[in-house]
Amino acid sequence: MERIHATYWLETGDDPAHAAEVIAGEQSSGTFVALPTETPELKARAGARVERLQILDSSTVPSLPTPAAVAHTANGRYTRALLELSWPLANLGPCLPTLMATIAGNLYELRCVTGLRLIDLQLPPAFAQAYPGPAFGVAGTRRLSGVHSGPLIGTIIKPSVGLSVQQTAEQVQLLVDGGIDFIKDDELQADGPACPFDERVKAVMRVVRAAADRLGRMPMVAFNLTGNLDQMKRRHDLVLAEGGSCVMACLNSIGLVGMTELRRHAQLPIHAHRAGWGYLSRSPQLGFDYAPWQKLWRLAGADHLHVNGLRNKFSEADDSVMAAARAVLAPVMDSAAMTAMPVFSSGQTGLQAHDTYAGLGSADLIHTAGGGIFGHPGGVAAGVQSFRDAWQAAQEGIELERAALDSPALAQALGFWR
Amino acid sequence: MERIHATYWLETGDDPAHAAEVIAGEQSSGTFVALPTETPELKARAGARVERLQILDSSTVPSLPTPAAVAHTANGRYTRALLELSWPLANLGPCLPTLMATIAGNLYELRCVTGLRLIDLQLPPAFAQAYPGPAFGVAGTRRLSGVHSGPLIGTIIKPSVGLSVQQTAEQVQLLVDGGIDFIKDDELQADGPACPFDERVKAVMRVVRAAADRLGRMPMVAFNLTGNLDQMKRRHDLVLAEGGSCVMACLNSIGLVGMTELRRHAQLPIHAHRAGWGYLSRSPQLGFDYAPWQKLWRLAGADHLHVNGLRNKFSEADDSVMAAARAVLAPVMDSAAMTAMPVFSSGQTGLQAHDTYAGLGSADLIHTAGGGIFGHPGGVAAGVQSFRDAWQAAQEGIELERAALDSPALAQALGFWR
Repeated sequence: MERIHATYWLETGDDPAHAAEVIAGEQSSGTFVALPTETPELKARAGARVERLQILDSSTVPSLPTPAAVAHTANGRYTRALLELSWPLANLGPCLPTLMATIAGNLYELRCVTGLRLIDLQLPPAFAQAYPGPAFGVAGTRRLSGVHSGPLIGTIIKPSVGLSVQQTAEQVQLLVDGGIDFIKDDELQADGPACPFDERVKAVMRVVRAAADRLGRMPMVAFNLTGNLDQMKRRHDLVLAEGGSCVMACLNSIGLVGMTELRRHAQLPIHAHRAGWGYLSRSPQLGFDYAPWQKLWRLAGADHLHVNGLRNKFSEADDSVMAAARAVLAPVMDSAAMTAMPVFSSGQTGLQAHDTYAGLGSADLIHTAGGGIFGHPGGVAAGVQSFRDAWQAAQEGIELERAALDSPALAQALGFWR
Repeated sequence: MERIHATYWLETGDDPAHAAEVIAGEQSSGTFVALPTETPELKARAGARVERLQILDSSTVPSLPTPAAVAHTANGRYTRALLELSWPLANLGPCLPTLMATIAGNLYELRCVTGLRLIDLQLPPAFAQAYPGPAFGVAGTRRLSGVHSGPLIGTIIKPSVGLSVQQTAEQVQLLVDGGIDFIKDDELQADGPACPFDERVKAVMRVVRAAADRLGRMPMVAFNLTGNLDQMKRRHDLVLAEGGSCVMACLNSIGLVGMTELRRHAQLPIHAHRAGWGYLSRSPQLGFDYAPWQKLWRLAGADHLHVNGLRNKFSEADDSVMAAARAVLAPVMDSAAMTAMPVFSSGQTGLQAHDTYAGLGSADLIHTAGGGIFGHPGGVAAGVQSFRDAWQAAQEGIELERAALDSPALAQALGFWR
């Protein structure tokens, strides 16, 4: 029978084998007390199963706060282990919301748990039959943006909020004149009265359509339509009617049902923003790795997924960034690729092109920069060009310094940011 | 002008005043680099404002992992403070999803942040005009359940998963015969093929309707309809058609858009389960307190909200449980009460009635127990009766031991669980 497999990094002051059974029980047929109705037959059929328990190391202090009674029992030894659990699909069916409650529900606060992080998720094919995955992904994004090789070079409207509709359109004009491939709203800018969505889309698309006529390709603008469902649908329809080619939504704001419904309605790629990812991941002993988490959103329909960037301005380490990006490009499961496009951002200047390409082995990505484009000493066009030249060099195996000999924009970038 | 106020517990290795400005900037008009377009006028209009920065204490180690460069600058001093920020409503309008990205977006992972937790949220009245709040709340739940005073005594179908439709109905029969007020599905049990939603609702409601005919009041059953939106709507309609009086949804599974849409459609109280709350709250230096978090869900329409229980079987301390319950009964804002009903659960036996009532000053709650009812030595009816008698004594100011002299069920409970 088909089963769902989830792997956790676990820390426990309890006997790890016992803790594993408690977690498996709590997340399936068991509870705190033994019940006569939980028969051996029922448990064999519906219970979660401990598939693997691999002891790693131990600590003398618990990672997460723990009641005194538990600390007393632990006797100063908190064992860390990899725990793989599996569930019969028949418990829940291929339902993403109930999957979330099953693999990441009432288990992080269990007393026997002093640290728990979901690090891997393997789903049976039924999920790919029940959910559509991204409608556009890499191929569709390339087709709509006219960028047939290399990354889409992108940027974010800044200041995030505070610009009027007219000022936003002027900034977009500057960007499309500079040769940009991709522009996104900030996650804080959706439909505030100070810069209403409808007027912003109309003013920006006027600029973008004119640019497309000149360029023979349309720069892609991800308009942040995050809101209630009727608002998101109506906003999507406006972007479509205005000839736009992308919409953006904040995953943690709208949730799995919001994403699923947006995907059902959408005729445009969905640029998925992970704002709030920090509260899900910043404690290494709690929450989620990106690899299992992003699978849920790709099944639901995300075309582009944010992964931060190398040498970023946040606290995330480079290896975590690259693991996230590789996960977004890896198949959701053997029978369904559902590839999405990783979106790199934060403190990016073009100087990260080589390492990004080396780490990913692919240029199927969106590489966005704010300061790296607006702050380039030669202006926006030079900012975009320096990015393009850096990526071309990376893909052709030419060192950055050598490539700069043939690219004044890249030479300027090197001089400025190194 | 109307503003949104959020208060955080902050830990930083930076100068706290500087860190406060960085957070305010990142979550409004600022970014990592100074931009000429962020004029003083724009910043005054659209920027988040630091309203209060109250230094608390400091630590020599950062609570959350921090890049070496940051740790170096911190020089072994991580200051803790209360930070209150405010935003102009005009930035986002009264939109819950964008509010989420604003107050809890890309800020937990900032380099200057070594700990951040949202502890308070004050919203302008526009949110109460844009969102309906709970349709039933305390009064509607009492009306539909026929429990006009004291708590609703409730329980959870156990085993959580694995029972067939027929076995589930048999368990409900046992519970309604025992005089129960409220029954809920487990968060793991929605519409798995092993116990399909439709058949379960039909079989259970047959039992419940018959009980209502005998009792003159209908025990409330919260059927877990968590799923995609069309599924949730269809399932709701079935519960309604079968004469049911409550539906249940997992908040972290469906998200704010799911909850908002369910509320728009629903004609029944929505029992809101917080499965996954642990990953949002278990690290004291990260994530959310319950008080600000639950406000979003009440605005969106939650009628009942889980708060754990005193002396529970999880790791949450009693003061946190009571703070959560008080928050659920407190008004969302001065101009809109939107009161929901707190749901106590986990390791509850009736022995917590006095302390729960003393801590809350109200019996407007649902008190659920699994073992405390099924495990009572006198059986289910005695389990329910012991809970009722304990609560009556608590409300009348009679000590538990004295009340037990007049209640064999309570006396048995005391003998068994003390």
